[in-house]
Amino acid sequence: MMADLIQEVFLHHLDNPLLRQLADSTVLTLAGNGRIAISTDSFVVRPLFFPGGDIGSLAVHGTVNDLAMRGARPLWLTAAFILEEGLPLEVLQRITRSMATAAQEAGVVIVAGDTKVVERGHGDGVYINTTGVGVVPDEVDVAPHRIRPGDVILINGTVGDHGIAVLSEREGLKFETELVSDSAPLNGLVERLLMAAPHTHCLRDPTRGGVAAALNELAVAAGVGVELDEAAVPVRPAVMAACEMLGFDPLTVANEGKLIAFVPPEEAEAALAAMRAHPLGRDAARIGRATAEHPGVVLARTGIGGRRVVDMPLGELLPRIC
Amino acid sequence: MMADLIQEVFLHHLDNPLLRQLADSTVLTLAGNGRIAISTDSFVVRPLFFPGGDIGSLAVHGTVNDLAMRGARPLWLTAAFILEEGLPLEVLQRITRSMATAAQEAGVVIVAGDTKVVERGHGDGVYINTTGVGVVPDEVDVAPHRIRPGDVILINGTVGDHGIAVLSEREGLKFETELVSDSAPLNGLVERLLMAAPHTHCLRDPTRGGVAAALNELAVAAGVGVELDEAAVPVRPAVMAACEMLGFDPLTVANEGKLIAFVPPEEAEAALAAMRAHPLGRDAARIGRATAEHPGVVLARTGIGGRRVVDMPLGELLPRIC
Repeated sequence: MMADLIQEVFLHHLDNPLLRQLADSTVLTLAGNGRIAISTDSFVVRPLFFPGGDIGSLAVHGTVNDLAMRGARPLWLTAAFILEEGLPLEVLQRITRSMATAAQEAGVVIVAGDTKVVERGHGDGVYINTTGVGVVPDEVDVAPHRIRPGDVILINGTVGDHGIAVLSEREGLKFETELVSDSAPLNGLVERLLMAAPHTHCLRDPTRGGVAAALNELAVAAGVGVELDEAAVPVRPAVMAACEMLGFDPLTVANEGKLIAFVPPEEAEAALAAMRAHPLGRDAARIGRATAEHPGVVLARTGIGGRRVVDMPLGELLPRIC
Repeated sequence: MMADLIQEVFLHHLDNPLLRQLADSTVLTLAGNGRIAISTDSFVVRPLFFPGGDIGSLAVHGTVNDLAMRGARPLWLTAAFILEEGLPLEVLQRITRSMATAAQEAGVVIVAGDTKVVERGHGDGVYINTTGVGVVPDEVDVAPHRIRPGDVILINGTVGDHGIAVLSEREGLKFETELVSDSAPLNGLVERLLMAAPHTHCLRDPTRGGVAAALNELAVAAGVGVELDEAAVPVRPAVMAACEMLGFDPLTVANEGKLIAFVPPEEAEAALAAMRAHPLGRDAARIGRATAEHPGVVLARTGIGGRRVVDMPLGELLPRIC
């Protein structure tokens, strides 16, 4: 009976002709040159609901964004749920509704699904895996190996919002200003960015480990140095205050609606303008550049003229954040 | 450090040029007409290792088979792990090695991955999601709606092996004969079958809920009746004995290397011969037919000339079996 109820919830909220094939797998027709991007991500965030989002919207945004970071146009998602016995049906309904809304906003269709149930005490309510498929337009080639010394590094807005919002909800911390996750689908923004700056070399969403992890990974992968203008990185005052209180560096805190772009200098202004013209890029900023010096190392210029190495965050400072 | 170790395990066992893109998503080029099949499945089997397989090989076979059931040629898998803190690294290594072997045998490449870690006591060692993409050849169209009254129903071998093997391992039951899971990749068998019987109407792997669930689902989906020749369904004597002891109907027990085919009568002999010529179809049998009568209902002809309704199994008789 539970199985029927669950099926009803999913089909009610996620219904579409593709999902309604209800076969072992879903058959789809792909237009274009045949270059597709695939990405998979499991979501184990605690708590399931937080200011600005929930595990359902996060599971859509996370995978949509991973596809967008290759310049792909996300088309299809699969959604697989591991449910803990005893999860209230209305919780599942809220999460599924949120997934449906997020998918619609991002312009993707949930084409296949799966549900497994584990005994009470073996899960955490619900874990969600989403796997996404997108089409990579002909002219697009964004990847770490394309980064060149001289590339300008841009970000589309403030950092640390997601990690601090989830953490404060989880720990019951109260701040004067409400902290809200930045969880959002970035594919629309990326489309605008690539139209304005078609030679963009690389995109990366700074999720687990934040901007610090993303820049370190890219510096190593591309064999370039990164010079970060720390004062230029936008941080909300409330997030900064929370980080100071908790002893976190905002550069290492997870984001779910941010991207870092490596753009050739001649297209940097156009890229920045395009981002600022988009609702998800209003606070976009130029935060640094790639250098031929100190390959593999991220150096931050601090406010008072000094320099410090921005290390790869060790381990997960904030577990279960996505 | 644990993160590095995990990364090492995965890259060591699953290494390939596509996975080595190590970007947010993997870009792939698809040949053919652009029709692709997608399927997703999470695996929460307990215990992680059982006679004839483990959660790793199962996670590959399960998704490969779901693609094959649409006549697709499985190409790519993604693999996402939810690990419980404290999982011994050698367990993860064994599972990953098994996945790599299974993928190689099935001819699929693991192209993207993800790892999340949950606190001790929140998972069950490891849960794995695999999502697969395959190409559907031009001439292939197998789906429930294509089933016609008169179709002959075939199966490629004995039923119930997987469910009983996992259950006996989990419960520590001892039988005289070792019970071994039938977990196997069916894509090779399907290719041979479709060559011999190109007008095959529908394929279904009877996993959760066994043959009873698969036939009931298809009878409803296609609006046909199913007449099952119960005595013709191959069951190993040891599985039959275990089922009798445990009070299970072998028709409701899960399989992981079996398929049911609905084939037009004029191609049935060729289909059966093609299956029997394949190592995974040696015990293939004709087990029934689709009828215009009693649509949506599965009727079994019992050994002594009677008939009984084979119901949809209620709930999960055997939880955590895949």
